[in-house]
Amino acid sequence: MVMKKFINDPNNLTSELLHGYTLAYASKVKLVDDRIVVRTVPKDKNKVAIVTLGGAGHEPALSGYVGEGMIDASVVGDIFAAPGAPKVLEALRMFKDHPGILLVILNHAGDVMNGNIAFEMAVKEGINVKSILTADDIAPGINAYREDRRGLGACIPLFKIAGAAAEAGKSLDEVIAVAEKFNQTMVTLAVTMKTATHPQSGQYIAELADDMLEIGMGQHGEGGGTGPQKIVPADDISALMIDRLIAASKMQKGDKAVLIINGSGATTLMEMFVIFRKAHQVLTAQGINVVSGRCEEILTVQEAAGFQMILGKLDDETQKYLDAPSNAPYWVTR
Amino acid sequence: MVMKKFINDPNNLTSELLHGYTLAYASKVKLVDDRIVVRTVPKDKNKVAIVTLGGAGHEPALSGYVGEGMIDASVVGDIFAAPGAPKVLEALRMFKDHPGILLVILNHAGDVMNGNIAFEMAVKEGINVKSILTADDIAPGINAYREDRRGLGACIPLFKIAGAAAEAGKSLDEVIAVAEKFNQTMVTLAVTMKTATHPQSGQYIAELADDMLEIGMGQHGEGGGTGPQKIVPADDISALMIDRLIAASKMQKGDKAVLIINGSGATTLMEMFVIFRKAHQVLTAQGINVVSGRCEEILTVQEAAGFQMILGKLDDETQKYLDAPSNAPYWVTR
Repeated sequence: MVMKKFINDPNNLTSELLHGYTLAYASKVKLVDDRIVVRTVPKDKNKVAIVTLGGAGHEPALSGYVGEGMIDASVVGDIFAAPGAPKVLEALRMFKDHPGILLVILNHAGDVMNGNIAFEMAVKEGINVKSILTADDIAPGINAYREDRRGLGACIPLFKIAGAAAEAGKSLDEVIAVAEKFNQTMVTLAVTMKTATHPQSGQYIAELADDMLEIGMGQHGEGGGTGPQKIVPADDISALMIDRLIAASKMQKGDKAVLIINGSGATTLMEMFVIFRKAHQVLTAQGINVVSGRCEEILTVQEAAGFQMILGKLDDETQKYLDAPSNAPYWVTR
Repeated sequence: MVMKKFINDPNNLTSELLHGYTLAYASKVKLVDDRIVVRTVPKDKNKVAIVTLGGAGHEPALSGYVGEGMIDASVVGDIFAAPGAPKVLEALRMFKDHPGILLVILNHAGDVMNGNIAFEMAVKEGINVKSILTADDIAPGINAYREDRRGLGACIPLFKIAGAAAEAGKSLDEVIAVAEKFNQTMVTLAVTMKTATHPQSGQYIAELADDMLEIGMGQHGEGGGTGPQKIVPADDISALMIDRLIAASKMQKGDKAVLIINGSGATTLMEMFVIFRKAHQVLTAQGINVVSGRCEEILTVQEAAGFQMILGKLDDETQKYLDAPSNAPYWVTR
């Protein structure tokens, strides 16, 4: 069967998409050595640099967030695959004259392995780099070990907060402190209604019956733990998910929150707005103040139908950095 | 069969999505009388107001473009249906004390009929309103009568250009002149690989075989004229479409262009970048300078796979207005 995707030779897909992306936003981002996206006009060397890594196929993540006020480099692997450690090391070396580098690693086996290898090689070379791990997925349970929680879309508001702190001239330890403060409260739960095809193999990454959805399915089709369930009205799904997220984040009356509905691909903004509405009602009823909202495709899973609901606790400092300006192509300063 | 969409009672869908949207971006937009989206903090009355209308189900269009530097009000109909004339008239009355109102109507039968009725009633009330019609779809042929060309996604860069001119204090005639200058050169061609389901009826809006695509299919499943064809590599589709757009726009060597790949719903940014890359290459080879690029879902067709390729000629004035700041929730100032 022919895949219903607009691609050429699948072997060239990652290169072609990165070239297209950097052509479309040439004044903001450029491609170095075929797999590293950096700012076209780098900031001076007086700021902490932020570097991340991850497989392609989740656009606009992660390269869409390279830009002023956000991250400095995104090292891209092939579709759904971590980039090699040498490429990550190459990116770290580009910022060795900066006052420090924060390497943000999402908790997926390949990213952790290659990110850590590059990190250790950079340290041996005397580069001032520290790393943080994002592990926001609460599908394994709200008391699961962090190592068992995947890194989902909450890395993106984290990039924004850390990026703004770096742009404001904070030291590496200060940037890490503010990023970790948000990292420890941010939680995500995903739901899938239709799975996606891998654009290189043409295979479905998971299976779901016509009348079923699965809460907690990972962004590469990994199981959600509780298995598929019958499709129910949007408000029921939204209420169930936000309740679990509130419990996991330990948020309480009077707290300030950011709430993001991140579309997986085929789910429309129309649906995301309906989901947002209910989650916002539940938060408001519990006295939690949604000071920042967003419905958008910030980290996708090809043409999957579904979304990630992302909740994070904010204080005055993290809220200020989340709201700070950015010119990254896919983070709208609203 | 259960629809794979996150919705509640389909009869409440439009209300719920508009409430969700205006909750998510409450500092920017608010909902009036259940169907009119306006700015939360209106500009003073010294500027020309821009009002548009259209059916829901195409989010973020059209209400996503209400905001400073862009439009003042969006009057929303039910899914894929024009709003009634009384609602449009109500929106026009809201801006009667402004130095003028530009009503932008997309060329679809219902929008034109109800938009024109409201327009004439407003004129009778002494309201200073003028209207323009967008008709960018070149599927009927590059020499087709304007009345036979549908209004597709190019209305959105037009909103941006007209909105910036209005914000700059231009008179109604000046705003219309700059908008019409862009309107006459902007052209769009759509392609569909998978059609969408109507979220209220649950029916497919058109049919397409597993190995076929259709160039020119309208955003409600209307036929493209040439019928379905076999799926071919992305570069072939992109080259074929940009060639037709260049011919239709009569652009020549040395001209400045805006090129937008507008995803229909399920088509990924990954694919849009691949398509953009080839179209950019063709334009560059012909000496046409792409000064503004964008890959994004700016006007969608539910979960359809496909995209609209939008090309417009710019001069110094329209480029300046296209690049001017905006805080509309779904127009990123990049």
